[in-house]
Amino acid sequence: MTERIGPATGYRRIATEEAFIPPELHRMYRDLIASGGIDDPGFVSLMGYYLGSTSERARNVSERLQDLGARRLADMDAAGIDMQILSLTSPGVQVFKTDVAVAMARLANDQLAEAVRRRPDKFAGLIAVAPQDPTEAAKEIARGVTLGLKGVIINSHTQGEYLDDRKFWPIFEAAEASGLPVYLHPNTPPPKMIAPFLESGLDGAIYGFAVETGLHALRLVTQGVFDQFPKLTLILGHLGEALPFWLSRLDYMHRGTVNSKRYDFMKPLKKKVSDYLRENVYYTTSGMAWEPAISFTQSVIGMDRVMYAMDYPYQYVPEEVSAQDALPISDADKKNFFQTTAEKVFRL
Amino acid sequence: MTERIGPATGYRRIATEEAFIPPELHRMYRDLIASGGIDDPGFVSLMGYYLGSTSERARNVSERLQDLGARRLADMDAAGIDMQILSLTSPGVQVFKTDVAVAMARLANDQLAEAVRRRPDKFAGLIAVAPQDPTEAAKEIARGVTLGLKGVIINSHTQGEYLDDRKFWPIFEAAEASGLPVYLHPNTPPPKMIAPFLESGLDGAIYGFAVETGLHALRLVTQGVFDQFPKLTLILGHLGEALPFWLSRLDYMHRGTVNSKRYDFMKPLKKKVSDYLRENVYYTTSGMAWEPAISFTQSVIGMDRVMYAMDYPYQYVPEEVSAQDALPISDADKKNFFQTTAEKVFRL
Repeated sequence: MTERIGPATGYRRIATEEAFIPPELHRMYRDLIASGGIDDPGFVSLMGYYLGSTSERARNVSERLQDLGARRLADMDAAGIDMQILSLTSPGVQVFKTDVAVAMARLANDQLAEAVRRRPDKFAGLIAVAPQDPTEAAKEIARGVTLGLKGVIINSHTQGEYLDDRKFWPIFEAAEASGLPVYLHPNTPPPKMIAPFLESGLDGAIYGFAVETGLHALRLVTQGVFDQFPKLTLILGHLGEALPFWLSRLDYMHRGTVNSKRYDFMKPLKKKVSDYLRENVYYTTSGMAWEPAISFTQSVIGMDRVMYAMDYPYQYVPEEVSAQDALPISDADKKNFFQTTAEKVFRL
Repeated sequence: MTERIGPATGYRRIATEEAFIPPELHRMYRDLIASGGIDDPGFVSLMGYYLGSTSERARNVSERLQDLGARRLADMDAAGIDMQILSLTSPGVQVFKTDVAVAMARLANDQLAEAVRRRPDKFAGLIAVAPQDPTEAAKEIARGVTLGLKGVIINSHTQGEYLDDRKFWPIFEAAEASGLPVYLHPNTPPPKMIAPFLESGLDGAIYGFAVETGLHALRLVTQGVFDQFPKLTLILGHLGEALPFWLSRLDYMHRGTVNSKRYDFMKPLKKKVSDYLRENVYYTTSGMAWEPAISFTQSVIGMDRVMYAMDYPYQYVPEEVSAQDALPISDADKKNFFQTTAEKVFRL
């Protein structure tokens, strides 16, 4: 992990899914778990591990998450990262009671904006929101814009609820109106889904994250979010949680499901499922520094819709930067991949 | 659907995931749902649709599933299919009480063996088992071999239980001892997982099938089934339920999970997760007649581990045969894809 990558030639490396946490929130996670006041086995297990483990990995992640200064900048230098797009780590404020969540989103956004003000050459940031109160979330998006933040981060389900429920749509309305992308970041599956994952140790980044977030994205598409908000941009990490692999089957089976009238709420859409996945969604390589899957996604989605991400500090592996420097694409495409697409999507 | 494909040049087309149902079992599904005596919302919703709908699609599927004669053979001719590897449709006997399930697996296997005896040039078959009674399932595998059947079909979870539980391992022991592959076919997710899928209409072939079956396959790998039974062959449809897309991340996160000691039951394996997915698993193209995903899977798994499947009668689309005739691979690879690999795996 100490290999120094050095500056790139011809492009800046902008990492687009990079996590932090205010120390206050870190303590509140600890208190929430200790109090037993939360019905979310995935959160309790995963965050409980990071907070309770004495392992080097857990300690490293916890310390690095809370640092928006020298240590983070040194890590970025060592890995050749020119800029991080920062976001409050999963599950953000989405596990708290509504009033607490609204207040803590503000606190996180204030701290993030301050970090960006200190080092605008190194950091940009996404707005944390509390979907528990969609109206307040929409207000916080507007406030985040005045703070200079560049997008919205939401960590999949909120206490078992998904954003295809129309009560949440003021959030999409605000994001679309402000021209901000919404990064749909993973979370562990909710209580009504997690049992077969958790009992087998597959609830987190190894598989459960992908399933939960892929499901959420498909719910947004199939319930018509992009018909209602055609200019809305969604960002998915982990190369779209494998949805690019399924484009053809999703189109075939969605058409079949609509025609079957098996569900009265599964209505025809204006476009094919794959059209939305190609026209409203951007994809990052967080956790997926693997050329075959990157090249596949570039080829079936579009070269200009795949962006670099590291997933710092969870997957701080400088060698993965070198691997992506070596992607078999043109210099112009590589500049888009590491730099220009992110500048466009986040309006840097 | 009436386009006639005609015979292929240089190879026979063997379709490897093709469904049937004895009329007796069809009636028992109807009775089971009508009685309300089953806690499986996915089964009740999906099979209830096929049994209750008056739509052309539902009627077509129900009629074709029950035919092992002239109609099926005519459909095969029209689509240029030389042989079907038949298996009892999902969820097989896995929804019944144990004694009923054991008896109905025998009945299904007897009817299947009879169909194969009538047309050994056109049909081969997989053995249905009742995992509810692993000892009886192992016996039925041995009996199925004497009937001339060529593999084992299991439709993912059995009433919420997964085959990584050691109580089920006599089934794998019997399959390995007989040299029969186990086809892990999709099922709707179990009650403890299905809610966010079912409430959004994504529980079936559009997404829930893939997640449920991918999870199941990963449970088998990570709980050491292939360390215990190194010669066991698993078959996954739908190009491996997207697991080939995840090879790199699965290896990274499995190593991290084991090292973290977060779960006491997540032990080190003899090989990497991707090694098992490349060495113990074969992949079929059921429902995935899409060149980019087929080529990707061939390239990251191995050209000799991807076989043709149609998923008759659920996805009877003759044009998909032509699409796969046109895959950009050599004539030798195409013969393996449509014919030779299936002959090897199923010992035809």
